Amino acid sequence: MCELLGMSANVPTDICFSFSGLMQRGGETGPHRDGWGISFYEGKGQRSFHDPDPSCSSKIAEFIKSHPIKSTLVISHIRQANVGKVNLENTHPFSRELWGYIWTFAHNGQLDTRLFNLPLEFYLPVGNTDSEYAFCWLMDQLRKTFKTRPSDPKVLSDFIHQCCEKLRELGVFNMLFGESEFLFAYNTTKLWWITRKAPFGEASLKDCDVTVDFKNETSITDKVTVVATEPLTKNEQWNAIETGELITFELADVVDQKYSKGIV
Amino acid sequence: MCELLGMSANVPTDICFSFSGLMQRGGETGPHRDGWGISFYEGKGQRSFHDPDPSCSSKIAEFIKSHPIKSTLVISHIRQANVGKVNLENTHPFSRELWGYIWTFAHNGQLDTRLFNLPLEFYLPVGNTDSEYAFCWLMDQLRKTFKTRPSDPKVLSDFIHQCCEKLRELGVFNMLFGESEFLFAYNTTKLWWITRKAPFGEASLKDCDVTVDFKNETSITDKVTVVATEPLTKNEQWNAIETGELITFELADVVDQKYSKGIV
Repeated sequence: MCELLGMSANVPTDICFSFSGLMQRGGETGPHRDGWGISFYEGKGQRSFHDPDPSCSSKIAEFIKSHPIKSTLVISHIRQANVGKVNLENTHPFSRELWGYIWTFAHNGQLDTRLFNLPLEFYLPVGNTDSEYAFCWLMDQLRKTFKTRPSDPKVLSDFIHQCCEKLRELGVFNMLFGESEFLFAYNTTKLWWITRKAPFGEASLKDCDVTVDFKNETSITDKVTVVATEPLTKNEQWNAIETGELITFELADVVDQKYSKGIV
Repeated sequence: MCELLGMSANVPTDICFSFSGLMQRGGETGPHRDGWGISFYEGKGQRSFHDPDPSCSSKIAEFIKSHPIKSTLVISHIRQANVGKVNLENTHPFSRELWGYIWTFAHNGQLDTRLFNLPLEFYLPVGNTDSEYAFCWLMDQLRKTFKTRPSDPKVLSDFIHQCCEKLRELGVFNMLFGESEFLFAYNTTKLWWITRKAPFGEASLKDCDVTVDFKNETSITDKVTVVATEPLTKNEQWNAIETGELITFELADVVDQKYSKGIV
């Protein structure tokens, strides 16, 4: 299995604190030694860092921690391989362009081989993971259904939720998916989120001895939502996403929630 | 205008020497202050670094110089903006997936506004440069013409050459384009290349006081081709690519050359 980390914020924010915790799980406090990646959005632009080496000892991870990149939307992933070799093309997050937006995807879980019977048309995987295949299928569905980007995010999230429910029939499908504005978080087994806003307090990481007092790091109007496979801090209240639930975040706010109609 | 740098090698090779020279032109010895980017292939996998800040003072550029990434195919670009704002989405190289391969593109030059009359179907630009628009059009042509990747690289290069000739009718179009195996280099005004192989000798950069003796850095079977807007070294013999010529490199070798039939 793998671990996911996402962020949606109303001002460009660095994710160093949460990222520091996650990276420890990549071979130090957790077994996810098979590479890691992170994608940052800045406006419509996106930049990604991918490394097939363990995150706990990665020089690129070290660099990102010491040279924070501020972003309003981040998707990150550390990998413990089950399907697909450990190499660069199998390293999440995966990205594709649709409607003039870069879409980014990371997956935690495993889907059974029926997945590979789903036909692909526009988007093809570069590597050989179940995750990238599922991403290409999801992108295909979006492209075939909507000629342009729907202006109402609820239309988009409703459709994405239907696709996620279909993928969940094939196994464990915990997902972070997004483009420059919206972060979609879908859960099968475990995915948690927290929104930090004024009055800000202190938070201490579970995975290493780091405490931050967000009062000193933020202004009063800042809002930042973090989504993670497991809560990253030990002294804050995280919210669980239900099985079969898709939450849509925009600028840190929950703008839509879709629940399972009980497929599984 | 901008500067291009490409590499095709028969063994994973770091591009630090050439990159060090190029980065100086990003605001130090040259005027290309408007961002830079670099894409490395490792097998079918690709990783890119993009930075809208000047390369000569970029922390990410510094990191890449001090932590070499070995690759068989590299495309890099430093930007002096003419069309499109200085921001992440307008920073080359641009990438899209086709036939299960990631294609990467960087452009030096400027195309006139007739470019934007060329219809786009599958691929849309994320930013607003002429370069990304031309890339999307080129990708569209490839996708519409070939259902799968042609097994003969000459079929591919013949078609790409026709597309490049059409784009050259619209202005200056110097291009590096490629995926995991092939590097395509097309010239309108200036583009140079050199292949280094045994017996290796010394090379000294033009843009900073760095000399490398490749004898000490290589084994006897290594071959590395570098393509650049201007020769990067002062004591080696670089080859000019003709106006309207497309050269296809594979593992450092020239595998095809297409010449203009005199459109311009």
